[in-house]
Amino acid sequence: MTDSGLTRLDGRAFDEMRPVRITRGFTDHPAGSVLVEFGKTRVMCTASVELGVPRFKKDSGEGWLTAEYAMLPSATHERMPRESMKGKVKGRTHEISRLVGRSLRAAVDLSQLGENTIQLDCDVLQADGGTRTASITGAYVALADAIAFLTERGVVPGKPLLAPVAAVSVGIIDGHVALDLPYEEDSRAEVDLNVVMAEGGNFVEIQGTGEHGLFGREQLGEMLDVAEKGCSQLIDAQRAALGW
Amino acid sequence: MTDSGLTRLDGRAFDEMRPVRITRGFTDHPAGSVLVEFGKTRVMCTASVELGVPRFKKDSGEGWLTAEYAMLPSATHERMPRESMKGKVKGRTHEISRLVGRSLRAAVDLSQLGENTIQLDCDVLQADGGTRTASITGAYVALADAIAFLTERGVVPGKPLLAPVAAVSVGIIDGHVALDLPYEEDSRAEVDLNVVMAEGGNFVEIQGTGEHGLFGREQLGEMLDVAEKGCSQLIDAQRAALGW
Amino acid sequence: MTDSGLTRLDGRAFDEMRPVRITRGFTDHPAGSVLVEFGKTRVMCTASVELGVPRFKKDSGEGWLTAEYAMLPSATHERMPRESMKGKVKGRTHEISRLVGRSLRAAVDLSQLGENTIQLDCDVLQADGGTRTASITGAYVALADAIAFLTERGVVPGKPLLAPVAAVSVGIIDGHVALDLPYEEDSRAEVDLNVVMAEGGNFVEIQGTGEHGLFGREQLGEMLDVAEKGCSQLIDAQRAALGW
Amino acid sequence: MTDSGLTRLDGRAFDEMRPVRITRGFTDHPAGSVLVEFGKTRVMCTASVELGVPRFKKDSGEGWLTAEYAMLPSATHERMPRESMKGKVKGRTHEISRLVGRSLRAAVDLSQLGENTIQLDCDVLQADGGTRTASITGAYVALADAIAFLTERGVVPGKPLLAPVAAVSVGIIDGHVALDLPYEEDSRAEVDLNVVMAEGGNFVEIQGTGEHGLFGREQLGEMLDVAEKGCSQLIDAQRAALGW
Amino acid sequence: MTDSGLTRLDGRAFDEMRPVRITRGFTDHPAGSVLVEFGKTRVMCTASVELGVPRFKKDSGEGWLTAEYAMLPSATHERMPRESMKGKVKGRTHEISRLVGRSLRAAVDLSQLGENTIQLDCDVLQADGGTRTASITGAYVALADAIAFLTERGVVPGKPLLAPVAAVSVGIIDGHVALDLPYEEDSRAEVDLNVVMAEGGNFVEIQGTGEHGLFGREQLGEMLDVAEKGCSQLIDAQRAALGW
Amino acid sequence: MTDSGLTRLDGRAFDEMRPVRITRGFTDHPAGSVLVEFGKTRVMCTASVELGVPRFKKDSGEGWLTAEYAMLPSATHERMPRESMKGKVKGRTHEISRLVGRSLRAAVDLSQLGENTIQLDCDVLQADGGTRTASITGAYVALADAIAFLTERGVVPGKPLLAPVAAVSVGIIDGHVALDLPYEEDSRAEVDLNVVMAEGGNFVEIQGTGEHGLFGREQLGEMLDVAEKGCSQLIDAQRAALGW
Repeated sequence: MTDSGLTRLDGRAFDEMRPVRITRGFTDHPAGSVLVEFGKTRVMCTASVELGVPRFKKDSGEGWLTAEYAMLPSATHERMPRESMKGKVKGRTHEISRLVGRSLRAAVDLSQLGENTIQLDCDVLQADGGTRTASITGAYVALADAIAFLTERGVVPGKPLLAPVAAVSVGIIDGHVALDLPYEEDSRAEVDLNVVMAEGGNFVEIQGTGEHGLFGREQLGEMLDVAEKGCSQLIDAQRAALGW
Repeated sequence: MTDSGLTRLDGRAFDEMRPVRITRGFTDHPAGSVLVEFGKTRVMCTASVELGVPRFKKDSGEGWLTAEYAMLPSATHERMPRESMKGKVKGRTHEISRLVGRSLRAAVDLSQLGENTIQLDCDVLQADGGTRTASITGAYVALADAIAFLTERGVVPGKPLLAPVAAVSVGIIDGHVALDLPYEEDSRAEVDLNVVMAEGGNFVEIQGTGEHGLFGREQLGEMLDVAEKGCSQLIDAQRAALGW
Repeated sequence: MTDSGLTRLDGRAFDEMRPVRITRGFTDHPAGSVLVEFGKTRVMCTASVELGVPRFKKDSGEGWLTAEYAMLPSATHERMPRESMKGKVKGRTHEISRLVGRSLRAAVDLSQLGENTIQLDCDVLQADGGTRTASITGAYVALADAIAFLTERGVVPGKPLLAPVAAVSVGIIDGHVALDLPYEEDSRAEVDLNVVMAEGGNFVEIQGTGEHGLFGREQLGEMLDVAEKGCSQLIDAQRAALGW
Repeated sequence: MTDSGLTRLDGRAFDEMRPVRITRGFTDHPAGSVLVEFGKTRVMCTASVELGVPRFKKDSGEGWLTAEYAMLPSATHERMPRESMKGKVKGRTHEISRLVGRSLRAAVDLSQLGENTIQLDCDVLQADGGTRTASITGAYVALADAIAFLTERGVVPGKPLLAPVAAVSVGIIDGHVALDLPYEEDSRAEVDLNVVMAEGGNFVEIQGTGEHGLFGREQLGEMLDVAEKGCSQLIDAQRAALGW
Repeated sequence: MTDSGLTRLDGRAFDEMRPVRITRGFTDHPAGSVLVEFGKTRVMCTASVELGVPRFKKDSGEGWLTAEYAMLPSATHERMPRESMKGKVKGRTHEISRLVGRSLRAAVDLSQLGENTIQLDCDVLQADGGTRTASITGAYVALADAIAFLTERGVVPGKPLLAPVAAVSVGIIDGHVALDLPYEEDSRAEVDLNVVMAEGGNFVEIQGTGEHGLFGREQLGEMLDVAEKGCSQLIDAQRAALGW
Repeated sequence: MTDSGLTRLDGRAFDEMRPVRITRGFTDHPAGSVLVEFGKTRVMCTASVELGVPRFKKDSGEGWLTAEYAMLPSATHERMPRESMKGKVKGRTHEISRLVGRSLRAAVDLSQLGENTIQLDCDVLQADGGTRTASITGAYVALADAIAFLTERGVVPGKPLLAPVAAVSVGIIDGHVALDLPYEEDSRAEVDLNVVMAEGGNFVEIQGTGEHGLFGREQLGEMLDVAEKGCSQLIDAQRAALGW
């Protein structure tokens, strides 16, 4: 049950997003470069373009899009060892990279892209919960800029960019459905749901986990209601950032 | 929309499971060893026990449970390179290992286990879709046997085993909601949903992906209906195998 | 000295094999798939085929055959860490993979195979001594099925399959020469000899190690006598399984 | 020969630094967090603190300081593969990490630090030449903040922070000695010299390389003159940022 | 059949060793350091000592001995990639390291060594066939020196060194049994047998492979005759080098 | 201040090299193979040649030269773990490999080499300080032999070999500038400077580090004076070894 009478540790209502900021042109080299902030969570999302496609797509006439997510070692409350130095990428990192890739492939029509590859990189500068959802949300804007860049140069045969895709987390904390969890809430949530939504309200992906408890159909419904609201606001922010 | 008038390539109704078989005592060394079969998908699920816990659980009075999932190289239609030889574990493997671990931790009360560790291994002998859901379903039975083994030896202070947990995949194929997808269906499904359910109908985890298309609230509801039916049958099969 | 008056822990005579079972068609995807059992040792041996050869064989007109051996982590009495997760393949694993490859290349005339590659995989489901010799013995049957498969499809120009190759271990335990050692015997044998033999009695490979003591020419002779007997029986079992 | 009459591509005099900016408190979690900018080169330098020291320093009564340098994959003109994904850290990365560590250890009296460890991380957000010298310059400020943090908490027995250390690159381009090379100049410099200097004008480290040509004693002298000037300005900027 | 009438490419009789040289004190730091040469094959064999034993031997009262074999990249006719740079140790390297370790453990009574560890390193400076047998032969001499070193320092409670162990290769080339094969012969031998023998004529290990053909009991006997002769000469050379 | 009145632990004057020996033709397979000794430091330097160039040099008409440096595990006072077994190359190894490569590329005109590759390997057999400078000095001689080898075979279009390049270390110990530091001095030097010089006195590379203290312009000048003297002697030794 959402309860707008109570507020949270940071003063937000249960169905309220943290302040969201999307800064385009954050760095100069990539075709698209965005800093996305969900409260204190800050992710640098870039979209680099490359002519040509990986071997399994050669001569398909289609393009390709792939994504990598990573945390800077000092992004977390306690510094984490650098994955490159350990020579091993953690399961969590792989899992999120794959989620970001799948989510953004839902925002692009590869058959319209020509044989070009877009590489998304989501590097977390500061982590305070919701890094994967911020990554997806920011990556869409970087993707839009990269496709515009390619289109300007005349190498894109069609109109590959589809409607905006954004993502948000919802959780149940002390029985309350809460939107956009910061680390402090995330670590003690009973249930954690990440929702990737396309403009119009349909889902690209949903992932719900009962971290410390199970959840039923009714709770799922309440969480999805709140998530839809959050995603709509994020899509507004994406559109605003892009000047659409 | 489920359509019980039509049937599928393998003759099943859309809301029908493939034949499920659970064989206990498949091998002799682990405390629990199960062969689980969903149609042609065959997974060897074992639960090995170890006295003591990893460092981060030391002196907590609690136990620990972890899981690893892997495919034999010849399990798939086309042989896949062996991960140990490449020196790299694929993102997909990590992702499923983590899912299995989270799902089975929902089936055990670690505070009742004492400082013991249970290691689950799900090794796919033959893959025909649904390997992760078969793994979770089989692992519960192996886990139950391992806990019985520990209890018999008197090293478990409490009653750590919780109610059964099972998992099933649902997809949308040519607009039809279909239960327990084999590889042929899985590879062309528009939407793919994996549901991990505890006895009683509450969810441990749901993961839905619009592989080739988006999905709305209504479709999600239909898929969950069918998944719940599948999970209930699987829990019956687990109980039957365990002689409960 | 073999001593047929005494028997062993498991009741066998010193020159007696454990029960051997060879099950063809164990899984469906590979061209050849065999479950081989020497007592409680169980190995899944598959032969996968691929058109084309590795670079160093290109345009040679010849085929290639290679093998990989591995243990499932729960195959042993104590669970062993998964090699893929450690990112390192153990020396023992490499050593046995190479032995299996060399042994089976002695069972095939690569010049008759055409530019095709056969990949053997020997995955130990349960280990109780003799996993390398069971692997070789089972792999021959999988190889035969794979070559039949290729021949049927008309891609093999000649008759690549040579006479059967089988392998067995012999050891000296408390001064007795003993055939086909289970784990319990293997771990305390003074001498350990693995013999790979082709039908007709000639050797493909012999590897003898004085694990806890040296051995002389006479003992070697006695061990080879017993090994030859064991290999002959295994070749009979291979022929029976193949219906030859 | 420096030639103040001529100017460079970006309009600077040959002995002029690019605009330098040092922003403290760039992120919130580490004890020290600095964004340093030399023109378009931008590096996030953090100093994380940990109670205790690595094994080789245990019971020495001294602290330890170590550093890691890395580039984000999208920091460069052309995107570079992520080192964590390749499972290999490049030689260049190792070399610079070691240089940063040595340079900053010259800015701290470990015997005054107590058994505490300071971990520096220099992550390049955008690369345009001089990333290693910017890293050293920014890391000093992060280090100062981290030591202040530790001192406030009362865990530092003495006064470990020594006088400022800064670094700059100098090169010879078309015969001219030029200060603080951006990528475009760096890639075609005949000689490249990195100078790490402590306040007062003494050197911590100098590394000079004739990338496309040799250099003599006289040229070395001219380059050091210009480098000293650059380092002095950087130390002024460090002091200003720290409010000293 | 050995045929002393014919000679080989290098003028040797079929049962003749290449010139063998064993140089003690080849380098200064290790407790034992030997350069062993079998013709043009040159291996640096060192024995380093360490107080204490690995964990699995702790408090056993026994010592431990382990070995590593490697080739310098420029040791072979064609340069080979450096294993450290590839991040992978080849199966062949593992296999030989394990053989050297087993062979030399047969030359030491670990219960007499005290809780000390001897690490053997066999680094091939130049390879011309027989590198593994030269390694074993040289390593015995380095081991003897290392044990003398430990004994002198009073840290060895007993007399751990056993009788000499040496190794040699034998092959069948064009039907002739030939001793101590150089690369040119080794690469075209029909059968290749490596024999590790202890003084007195008993075997530590034998490994025979039909590289391009099978071999029978009679051929095995002939090869062992020749190998025994070679090993005896090598043991004489070891004794001479040690001044025994 | 150099002080020729005092002498060092090993009896040398402060500006005196250890005995230098350069042995050509140390091994037979590589095109150039040199053993270089600076006192007890011994490095095997080889130059292997390969027709063709790496991809980034294809169709450039130019050749390529690269270098790898490594220590044998038993080369040091205390045995060091083997990098290939750890699966990781240390930062120090990378750093020196890169230094050797850059230094020797200054001794070759790649545009005169044709599309051929020269691979230098510097493997330290015994380490007693100055391994990197000995490596560079010896590698020049191996390089000269390899280029002569290529020239003889007619595959080199021009005259790629440039004037000799040699390297030496200088340090400040107890306030004295000292040439060519052995390990015992190196480990306690206040300042450590490595100088790579081409014949004629110009620098290829200088790397100076204040390991336990800073250094000023004057000290740098004194160290360079001594280093130049050392390098000149080394170049004389190179010329003598080459019979020039």
